[in-house]
Order: sequence, then structure tokens, then C-alpha cells
Amino acid sequence: MSASLRPHERAVTAPDRQDAALWFIGQIHTPWADRSDCPRKGDPVNGPLCRIALDPLWSEALLGVEDKDHLQILYWLHQSRRDVVQQNPNFGDRAIGTFALRSPLRPNPIASSTVRLERIAGTDLFVRGLDCVTGTPLVDIKPVFCCDESSERRHG
Amino acid sequence: MSASLRPHERAVTAPDRQDAALWFIGQIHTPWADRSDCPRKGDPVNGPLCRIALDPLWSEALLGVEDKDHLQILYWLHQSRRDVVQQNPNFGDRAIGTFALRSPLRPNPIASSTVRLERIAGTDLFVRGLDCVTGTPLVDIKPVFCCDESSERRHG
Repeated sequence: MSASLRPHERAVTAPDRQDAALWFIGQIHTPWADRSDCPRKGDPVNGPLCRIALDPLWSEALLGVEDKDHLQILYWLHQSRRDVVQQNPNFGDRAIGTFALRSPLRPNPIASSTVRLERIAGTDLFVRGLDCVTGTPLVDIKPVFCCDESSERRHG
Repeated sequence: MSASLRPHERAVTAPDRQDAALWFIGQIHTPWADRSDCPRKGDPVNGPLCRIALDPLWSEALLGVEDKDHLQILYWLHQSRRDVVQQNPNFGDRAIGTFALRSPLRPNPIASSTVRLERIAGTDLFVRGLDCVTGTPLVDIKPVFCCDESSERRHG
């Protein structure tokens, strides 16, 4: 795998174990068939409408979600390698640590995006603000509260 | 397990499968030994200093993290049941869907908090803003950028 590293990138020998199991709870449908087509970051205002298809097993857990304007979506970046610790996203003259980047390559490739909820139809949620390839597995849906973290963010 | 449900709460039969494996990449040390001691939400300004002990395997991935004021931390709520779809956190007269709550009980019990980074010593990160019991497994560390989601949050 190291053959595909860019200059200055570094990988480790990944752990041969599993500490916890995720259940995929649905699938995300976006306009992007290939990773190279995806935007770098989702746009909850002007981004295209994407469909989150929740597994009907969890349908009862949607009660009250229809009242939310924004949601935090966690999803599993199933195409990402997990062993890269230093990355060079722009082919520059040095690498950056994985934990200083929001790159999809990480030990546990879970992405977190805040999306705008447009509507819900059955177990389908229509949202704007995602950035992943179509077919990406869904991990969690959480409400975002108005004052949740935004006051903190302004200091960031 | 249903014996421990509160009035109006509902659970489903959990899937008997695992779709992806997490690697715990460290452990979080907080002042709270029991879930009942934990605050409902972390406070990145006035909350107590907590220590994130990263597994040294991933130490190189910290390069550049020291420049960040705020981080998004993902962690695995290992004490949470995963089958509850409607919850009644305040023993009220009705339940709320899991996806409309930030409760620790969820199909994939991954918490996401924005913390303020105070300092890094080796592979220990000292932060404010966590809310979990001591010993909670670490899943991911991501940078939070100033304008990341806060403009959206203000509409929320």
C-alpha cells in the first residue's frame, strides 16, 4: 500500500484487531459516483440535495427529527485507507498530521458534517451539506442545537 | 433488557452483525467515574481539564495539532445500550426519537464534542469540553476550523 503514498506521507502498520463493531444504519445517496468528484466540504446552503436512506429498522428513532433545521450526520468513509498518519493533500514540500486534517484518511474513517434538513419522506431524509460518494454507509444522525458549539467556534 | 426502559420508551431487536470495525486509538481521562456524575454537555470554557491519552502508535498523526485552538473529539460510549429508538430522558409523558436527541443511547454510540485544546505533552492532549466517564475509548481527533459550521449554526 505504501506505493500509493505521496511525497513526505507516512503510514503505520495498522492494528490487527477490532475494538467495537459499527452497524450501518442506512445509506447516503449523492450526485458523486467517484471520490474525485466530491467537493472538499459540503455546503448546507447551496449544495445539492442528497438523500439519506435510513434502514426501516430504525424508523421509530426519527420521531421529532422533522422539527430540526440542522442535523449532524456521521458516516463511514468506506473507501479510505486507515494507516496514514502524515498526509500531503496538496503535494507540498511537507506533510501534516492526520489529526490536524479533516481528510477522509484516518484510523477510524468517520466523517461528521452538519447538514440542513429540507424534508423527510418515510425513512428518507433530504438534506444539503454532504460531501461523500453515493453509497456511503450511514452511522448516526444527531440534532444540532442553535447554541451548541457555535459560540465556541467563533473563538477558533 | 426492556425491563430497564422508562415509560413510553421503545427498543428494537438489534442487528446480529458487524458492518465495520473501530480501532480504539486511545483513552479519555476525566473526573467522572460514573455515568451519573457526568455533565449533560461538556463546557469548553469552564469545564475541568481532561486528558486524552493517545495510543503512541498514532503519535505522528499529531503533527500540526498543537496549532489548533479547538478540536472535534469522537469517542465510543461503551456503557450505552444500542437498541433504544425512543427515549424519555426526563420521565415525561411521551418519548422522543433517538435521532432527535444527543443522548448516549444510540445504534452506534459515538459522541462528538468540540473541545478547547490547552496543551499537548507527548501523546497526551489536555482539553476542556468533554462530558464522558473516565476510561472512555477514543475514536478520532479532528481540527475545527473557525468558520466550519458556525455560520450555519446561527440559522439553526
